[in-house]
Amino acid sequence: MKRTFNLSAGPAMLPTSVLERAQKELLDYNGTGMSVMEMSHRSSYYDEIINDAEKNLRKLVNIPDNYRILFLQGGASQAFFTLVMNLKQSGKVAYVDSGNFAHKAIQAAEELEKDLNLDVDVVASSRNNGYKNIPEFPETLKNYDYLHICSNNTIEGTQFKEFPKYDDIPLVCDMSSDILSRPINIEDFGMIYAGAQKNLGIAGLTLVIIREDLLGLNEVPTMFNYKVFSDKNSMYNTPSTYSIYIHKLVTDWLLEIGGLETIETRNKEKAAILYDYLDQSKLFVPTADKDSRSLMNVTFSTNDDDLNKKFVEYAQENGFENIKGHRSVGGMRASIYNAFPKDGVEALVELMKKFEEEN
Amino acid sequence: MKRTFNLSAGPAMLPTSVLERAQKELLDYNGTGMSVMEMSHRSSYYDEIINDAEKNLRKLVNIPDNYRILFLQGGASQAFFTLVMNLKQSGKVAYVDSGNFAHKAIQAAEELEKDLNLDVDVVASSRNNGYKNIPEFPETLKNYDYLHICSNNTIEGTQFKEFPKYDDIPLVCDMSSDILSRPINIEDFGMIYAGAQKNLGIAGLTLVIIREDLLGLNEVPTMFNYKVFSDKNSMYNTPSTYSIYIHKLVTDWLLEIGGLETIETRNKEKAAILYDYLDQSKLFVPTADKDSRSLMNVTFSTNDDDLNKKFVEYAQENGFENIKGHRSVGGMRASIYNAFPKDGVEALVELMKKFEEEN
Repeated sequence: MKRTFNLSAGPAMLPTSVLERAQKELLDYNGTGMSVMEMSHRSSYYDEIINDAEKNLRKLVNIPDNYRILFLQGGASQAFFTLVMNLKQSGKVAYVDSGNFAHKAIQAAEELEKDLNLDVDVVASSRNNGYKNIPEFPETLKNYDYLHICSNNTIEGTQFKEFPKYDDIPLVCDMSSDILSRPINIEDFGMIYAGAQKNLGIAGLTLVIIREDLLGLNEVPTMFNYKVFSDKNSMYNTPSTYSIYIHKLVTDWLLEIGGLETIETRNKEKAAILYDYLDQSKLFVPTADKDSRSLMNVTFSTNDDDLNKKFVEYAQENGFENIKGHRSVGGMRASIYNAFPKDGVEALVELMKKFEEEN
Repeated sequence: MKRTFNLSAGPAMLPTSVLERAQKELLDYNGTGMSVMEMSHRSSYYDEIINDAEKNLRKLVNIPDNYRILFLQGGASQAFFTLVMNLKQSGKVAYVDSGNFAHKAIQAAEELEKDLNLDVDVVASSRNNGYKNIPEFPETLKNYDYLHICSNNTIEGTQFKEFPKYDDIPLVCDMSSDILSRPINIEDFGMIYAGAQKNLGIAGLTLVIIREDLLGLNEVPTMFNYKVFSDKNSMYNTPSTYSIYIHKLVTDWLLEIGGLETIETRNKEKAAILYDYLDQSKLFVPTADKDSRSLMNVTFSTNDDDLNKKFVEYAQENGFENIKGHRSVGGMRASIYNAFPKDGVEALVELMKKFEEEN
């Protein structure tokens, strides 16, 4: 079976064993004579799947009962809007601007500023530095409804190594591109959310993990109201059933291999292979500041547009898809999420070495 | 291969050939070495899939260029809210209350009544008749931003045979449970929307077909703004990529078998087998009024709760899943969407006959 080394920033590679299991069960799930795609979300068969998905996640991340798990739709981009609608209290909200998506979350809050009577403050930013680093957080912070961060900046290749902590200010985190890549202390967060198409499964599922005291703070239209979905176990209406099933298979896989400690070790190893090479290369230069480097998205460049283009083509000819960087950063980006195999990283470095020799 | 006769109201049966194709391509789409699940939505491979999905749909429904096709998320339930936000002008909006979901659409508008300064009028209703029929429309209707209907009432088993038509009032139609089941004249509608999990594919995809002059009427937050998604070809953010792929396979299948005329003939035949039996049965009674009967959801009862329960169990023992009616109607419901096979309907009637003899 040919498996392309797909370095896409998302949707991204899935574990081969997950795909094989989905393939095997596609027409007949567990002897039911039905595909999971065809199952009523109200059936006992499907109940088992969604309950197992939640159980797996609680086990992997060590999530206590006072946090609720919601399986929603619309992507993190929709949550940029709904989180404000749900979490707003005084209206003073704080954001860290550490990258393209962090900035989009701020813009979403600004769009709602008038209607919701908000005061949107950017309390830390690396925007003027081209988002090359995670900015320093202020020493103290007071009287905000929440502080919003994006833990891993997919486009720029930077990642929070530790999380800001302020008394009485819930930390709200877009963890779309590094959730389940390392252990976290869930109690550091008021709410975590993530689009599924990087480390959780496939596009069409948005995961929300939220502390229960943050539910029901506002009158929010039913379909955007986290409390409604919490009370209905994510089934106020039909959820994205198949995406939840794939997510369940991905969490099965993570548990099988040893959980988040194991995957963190693997992720560190994979990233080190690339960064170690980049740090001594005379052709390729890593883009992000050393202290802020992401283990998920490794950005680099030759600092020569033509040569970058040549390398992107060279990589594609050699079985590496989607290594082109985002247009706002340029250069290259290797997204090496949980499911990207170590031998793929090794093969990529070999290819880069060869390219360096030839150019 | 065991294939259960799944009478679920949705998610529901898919054509076996669609599932087989999805299974075959699951790990390797068209020699790419990638699953569709893993593909960047910005890749040329995926472009082809989403473009083909749109092309197929335009061909099947005969959709002219002045209608835009959007692949969204959140289900029809989310569209209950976003359609109001997008289509509101004067604020006077009209609804037909013909069933449970039609009513939910009204409630959604009512939730937004204050914020959007709306005047929500129910201009026709069969609520007091237990939704047993499609209500008559008013002779004239004037000065409404739109008229909203639900073309097929999944829970009650009723269906519009013709559509209301008023000058200068766009007809907005929740077609979730009978889209692509029969030819329609798209120009009768200002906007059609549908959750995919009945006739279009799998849960997690919401289709919107909208006349272009209805885009951009209001300032709507980006993620709920149809014009934004139209301008970005449904890719403002990552769409529900795999659901769109399955939708593409379903439309391939419909084109292969001969399009909407063919499927309408099949649907009429399938429904007739059931209704003809019900009309002469001494045990089972059809629930919906004769003139309003749905070809998609056939509701019936023995008018005896114990006997209904017994039949539901009997059907399950004999390989028919999900025949239990919705709790608000009781009795039984056979959802026989496009992909439900004729031999399944025949086998069901045989089973009902046998049950009738025995009880």
